[in-house]
Amino acid sequence: MADVFGKERSALHRLVAQSASRPYYRPLTARGAEVELDGRTVVMAGCNDYLGLSADPRVTEAAARALRRYGVSCSGSRVLNGTLALHEELEGRLAAFVGGEAALVTTTGFQANLALAALLDERDAVFADMSNHASLVDAVRLGGAAHHRYRHRDLGHLGRLLAASEPGRGRLIVTDGMFSMEGDLCPLPGIVELARRHGARLVVDGAHDIGLLGARGRGVSEHFGLIGEVDLVTGTLSKCFGSVGGMLVGPASVVEHLRHSARSVLFSAAMPPASAAAALASLRIIESEPERRRRVFGHARRLLAGLRSLGWDTGDSTTPVVPVYVGDSRLCLRVWQELLDAGVFTNAVVAPAVARNRALIRVTPQAIHTDDHISRVLDAFARVRRGLGPLLPAPGVPGRPEAVVA
Amino acid sequence: MADVFGKERSALHRLVAQSASRPYYRPLTARGAEVELDGRTVVMAGCNDYLGLSADPRVTEAAARALRRYGVSCSGSRVLNGTLALHEELEGRLAAFVGGEAALVTTTGFQANLALAALLDERDAVFADMSNHASLVDAVRLGGAAHHRYRHRDLGHLGRLLAASEPGRGRLIVTDGMFSMEGDLCPLPGIVELARRHGARLVVDGAHDIGLLGARGRGVSEHFGLIGEVDLVTGTLSKCFGSVGGMLVGPASVVEHLRHSARSVLFSAAMPPASAAAALASLRIIESEPERRRRVFGHARRLLAGLRSLGWDTGDSTTPVVPVYVGDSRLCLRVWQELLDAGVFTNAVVAPAVARNRALIRVTPQAIHTDDHISRVLDAFARVRRGLGPLLPAPGVPGRPEAVVA
Repeated sequence: MADVFGKERSALHRLVAQSASRPYYRPLTARGAEVELDGRTVVMAGCNDYLGLSADPRVTEAAARALRRYGVSCSGSRVLNGTLALHEELEGRLAAFVGGEAALVTTTGFQANLALAALLDERDAVFADMSNHASLVDAVRLGGAAHHRYRHRDLGHLGRLLAASEPGRGRLIVTDGMFSMEGDLCPLPGIVELARRHGARLVVDGAHDIGLLGARGRGVSEHFGLIGEVDLVTGTLSKCFGSVGGMLVGPASVVEHLRHSARSVLFSAAMPPASAAAALASLRIIESEPERRRRVFGHARRLLAGLRSLGWDTGDSTTPVVPVYVGDSRLCLRVWQELLDAGVFTNAVVAPAVARNRALIRVTPQAIHTDDHISRVLDAFARVRRGLGPLLPAPGVPGRPEAVVA
Repeated sequence: MADVFGKERSALHRLVAQSASRPYYRPLTARGAEVELDGRTVVMAGCNDYLGLSADPRVTEAAARALRRYGVSCSGSRVLNGTLALHEELEGRLAAFVGGEAALVTTTGFQANLALAALLDERDAVFADMSNHASLVDAVRLGGAAHHRYRHRDLGHLGRLLAASEPGRGRLIVTDGMFSMEGDLCPLPGIVELARRHGARLVVDGAHDIGLLGARGRGVSEHFGLIGEVDLVTGTLSKCFGSVGGMLVGPASVVEHLRHSARSVLFSAAMPPASAAAALASLRIIESEPERRRRVFGHARRLLAGLRSLGWDTGDSTTPVVPVYVGDSRLCLRVWQELLDAGVFTNAVVAPAVARNRALIRVTPQAIHTDDHISRVLDAFARVRRGLGPLLPAPGVPGRPEAVVA
């Protein structure tokens, strides 16, 4: 008889078991833009806290005040006993900032996306970018809708899938705004046009772009001058906001529906008071200190140009998510280890987070990095390229991703 | 063409829209065992912080220290950059406390249960109590396994479903340890025996019982003298631990598999440092102050006896989750409002959290309640019974739940 505990190891698990590199689950001690690992201090270039707010004293003190006032936890769901004025204030501020009638905050960004399942049933058809975040994929599965996945950022493919879908179905297009691993942007103007033409609703996950993109940091919609053209925006508080939690921003009627129907909202403990207070404090900084965005984009431009001139393939990224495509997963783990030896902590990203032959080193600058930190990152990549040169793919050789698993 | 934003309102949403009572999403200000609502101070009898630790100064100070030291958030998943020594310490302590080789902590309890999907595929068969938590239901859906639901606590039904299932399938029995709304316990000795007889693995969700049940608070397994007989234990840190987060405790090989395969782990930001530190501080108190358990069980016994003598139906509860069955959902909301008017905040629990005709008022004592608080709760129920008497069901009339939706 089969044993559910006897499942085959995942590709990731097998890879880790076979590798001498240990890039995952390493206990870190953060020191601002640097980090301590095995007693060494290295540059932290693998953290999503783009604006450097998670340890900003204004943010940590707001969090500390909230937990002294309200306790560590509400010990209950938002619906029954876990709503504080703090949650409502955050929802009002996020709705105004992102540009929607109303907002609902959730305990994680993952659960914000899962809440989308409450909009779907088996009569609906979802059209989703193949590189969408795993939580969006799982939301569609839970919702039971037909799942049509279009090639990454391919408007032609999306248009054909929409044209071919059965009439009468409820249609929903779902895409990341800024892709978490590739660092490129969804082609929002074209998607908005296709959504209108085919009578589809549009959900954009702004996990990585809210706080970062657009003159005021309002996300990919602002970047493209399309605020108000996205039907529902989801997002997280664990990147630019330096906290943990999720959000859904859209029409009041839809948000009200989600409040009373989404299982990931109804059946989960409320976001901790400290996390909500931290997000509010961060939002004030996001609104008042645009120089943080300028700074992190300056670092990103320097990294992208420097890495390309060193011969590394950074794909189509135009943002502070800087992917360095290595291709082979084992080689990716080796590059990660060599970078660490050279004093830089990055993220080794392999399947299922990206396609199997598209393993990459993910580099993320932060506003709290100095120019010297960025130089040290570039120096490390130069050194690794010199050392591993013949093993590495020539610039531009790997094909664009055709199928992404997550 | 159908519109995904045009979904019919859920039963809960319709109920709320039609009712003068407003039991949900009310912003509260906690004051220990009392709570401020609309400027009035009432007894808080609707919170899962059974041991009263969420605002214990030892717990809040540990949380405040952690967020000053590590920041509000790791801004990344456990796997890539979100693991601190704090997480590993918590995992080691929880494994020892619950009684397993290894543990994995997750950002919410909901996501701990979703991680179970990584143990399942379409060749497996899951046998699940009909009253299981929604997150367990969703895990089975995501895993794609056949889903056989047995009547609440009905060993005969479970045995028949196991006997009737196709040979060769991987089999998994999943049950809440202590049921979150009914307050009764899973019949663990009989379930363990059936699991052995039919070659099934057993997962118990100890969300409400870890910290509360058993002489040392180690949960439903300790209560029944069966520590080590459950293959995998899941749980939450948002009840007895007064924090937010989840856990999975079991064989090291299974935990290692989940670390590298569970999407709710791989693709979600790590538990905030403050939440992890708070849970560690709470665990020390859980281990060193058994009088908190005695106190909350004393309150529970007094509530159960008092409510029954007043003519209320408290079902089969033997724990600090005290359900007061009202039956009709609208009447339940009215009872909730009358109790609030009488100075007590409770939880009005209707579908989908319980079966449609089994609406209940959920009362939860805490260790920080005084005897006077419990008297005030009983006085409020007495007053509501006098006022609404003819509208209420006679004691014991409603049938046992046959089908539970969540």
